[in-house]
Amino acid sequence: MPARRRARRGLAGPGARGAAGAWSLAIHGGAGEAREGPGAREADETRREVLHDVLAAGARALAGGASSLDVVEDAVRALEDSPLFNAGKGAVFNARGEHELEASIMDGRTLAAGAVANLRGIKNPVTLARWVMERTAHVYLEGEGALAFAREQGMPLVAPDYFWTEESWSELKRARLGARGARTGQPWSGTVGAVARDRDGDLAAATSTGGTTGKLPGRVGDSSVIGAGTYASNASCAVSCTGQGEYFIRAAAARDICALVEYAGLDARAAARAVIHKKLERLGGRGGAIVVDRAGAAACTFNTGAMARGVVTSARRARVALSAAERL
Amino acid sequence: MPARRRARRGLAGPGARGAAGAWSLAIHGGAGEAREGPGAREADETRREVLHDVLAAGARALAGGASSLDVVEDAVRALEDSPLFNAGKGAVFNARGEHELEASIMDGRTLAAGAVANLRGIKNPVTLARWVMERTAHVYLEGEGALAFAREQGMPLVAPDYFWTEESWSELKRARLGARGARTGQPWSGTVGAVARDRDGDLAAATSTGGTTGKLPGRVGDSSVIGAGTYASNASCAVSCTGQGEYFIRAAAARDICALVEYAGLDARAAARAVIHKKLERLGGRGGAIVVDRAGAAACTFNTGAMARGVVTSARRARVALSAAERL
Repeated sequence: MPARRRARRGLAGPGARGAAGAWSLAIHGGAGEAREGPGAREADETRREVLHDVLAAGARALAGGASSLDVVEDAVRALEDSPLFNAGKGAVFNARGEHELEASIMDGRTLAAGAVANLRGIKNPVTLARWVMERTAHVYLEGEGALAFAREQGMPLVAPDYFWTEESWSELKRARLGARGARTGQPWSGTVGAVARDRDGDLAAATSTGGTTGKLPGRVGDSSVIGAGTYASNASCAVSCTGQGEYFIRAAAARDICALVEYAGLDARAAARAVIHKKLERLGGRGGAIVVDRAGAAACTFNTGAMARGVVTSARRARVALSAAERL
Repeated sequence: MPARRRARRGLAGPGARGAAGAWSLAIHGGAGEAREGPGAREADETRREVLHDVLAAGARALAGGASSLDVVEDAVRALEDSPLFNAGKGAVFNARGEHELEASIMDGRTLAAGAVANLRGIKNPVTLARWVMERTAHVYLEGEGALAFAREQGMPLVAPDYFWTEESWSELKRARLGARGARTGQPWSGTVGAVARDRDGDLAAATSTGGTTGKLPGRVGDSSVIGAGTYASNASCAVSCTGQGEYFIRAAAARDICALVEYAGLDARAAARAVIHKKLERLGGRGGAIVVDRAGAAACTFNTGAMARGVVTSARRARVALSAAERL
């Protein structure tokens, strides 16, 4: 695609075929509706700062030759450690006032993948997902079994109060005034994710979440479902989704975006738009996706009013945006 | 496709476009290597009988106008109730000598889906998956949370010894002589599944399994992962997979078969062959898939020595096969 046309389509990246040694990183901190009320503006400013810091660290690593797999894991770890996103530290409460976290990671070069769900007491679920990928014969571990594996591998656990934040507790109180089960229309899904292309041209994706406020205990969303919330294949692209997980599972959204690139010849942005704006909307689902393709072109697409997102590439400095009105 | 060419390709069904009112049902009872040893022949004969009975019941229902969703649920329930397949009653033991079952179901008309994993004490996981789909705002429920939901909904539980069978116990003993974690090369995955097109042209798919013998507690395979072990969309086809679940998750196999039909213009059989014989084999994975497409054409594909399988359509009487040498 000529550079001018690429620019018009809003694709950020080093060129349609990807210059040798070019790299790209896109991250998200969830999609939803813009927040208002006391402290919202300050929280949004801090969110921007965190996203900028994560992009800066990722850019340094990718420029230095780090693998996309390492970079997406580190980016998601940093977002998990912030109380401002619904993953790790900032995970929301389920219907029983507990936290159950889930995450996944995928290596586009080998299609190796790791996923964990229904986790309690794990500070960085994305790292446990990577350990499942690299240290077991399995892809997907859940609940007590996942916890036992974490303990056996020497991962330090955190107490339940680690995950308590003023914001997630207020969310639960608001949710309890509403219906039981998954809440629709909550202001922010807050799931975090990262997708990257490294200098070798290898793709990787990772996603992590606390789920939805007031969810039934044991509910799993798309963030740990390979093919739904996360997918990466060097044959097409790397994808991380955020939003109402049930719809992303039903659409097999992440894999579907890759399939549209691989089989229907769409570029990454058009594929993401087709899935988020057509397929997902037809089902009534809300959310977004970030994509980096083989050439390193990055795109962020969402059908909500806002999505915390950021992109940096070897050709273009880091940019961060929250509302739909902002351009990346 | 002309009828002659279709027949040569081994497609069973009412025609490329599907006659109005035509229906199809395909079922499987797992893929693996042919069994030998004492009692193997008798067990295989009983397996054939069960498959024939399930096809006969499904054919009666479909001919009478039953929905594909009801028929795939009933078919999988019947296979779960047989001790001869690794699902429900015949579920294998995990590394701790326990049973953890998983299942999923999907409605191709609405893309509604339900899935359950890490279940204990549930006689028919596929029905609990359907209840998750129809009675909650969620798609995927697991572990204690899924069990609590089952209890709350009045589903009767069974004691752990319900799942004890001579064959699954022997399997565990053999597995314990080998390595920890997922065993490769086990003789039979035994997962069960069903895919159907009803007289209205609606597609549905369901899959259920006990997982792999000696798996780590908390391990989830592809059978409960929408897009991996199960997918159904009226836009393409209905798919149920069986085999080494980790590879099917990494390939997003069920959704990938649908995507090849939807975007690459392959017929259902060619799509299933591309995924099972090319993509899965490239990863080193073994197993198979059954597919019914929009037109009602049915295909069973596997890269193992055997797959318990059967097909019946409104145009052709029921046929059952086990080994690769047999034709359907």
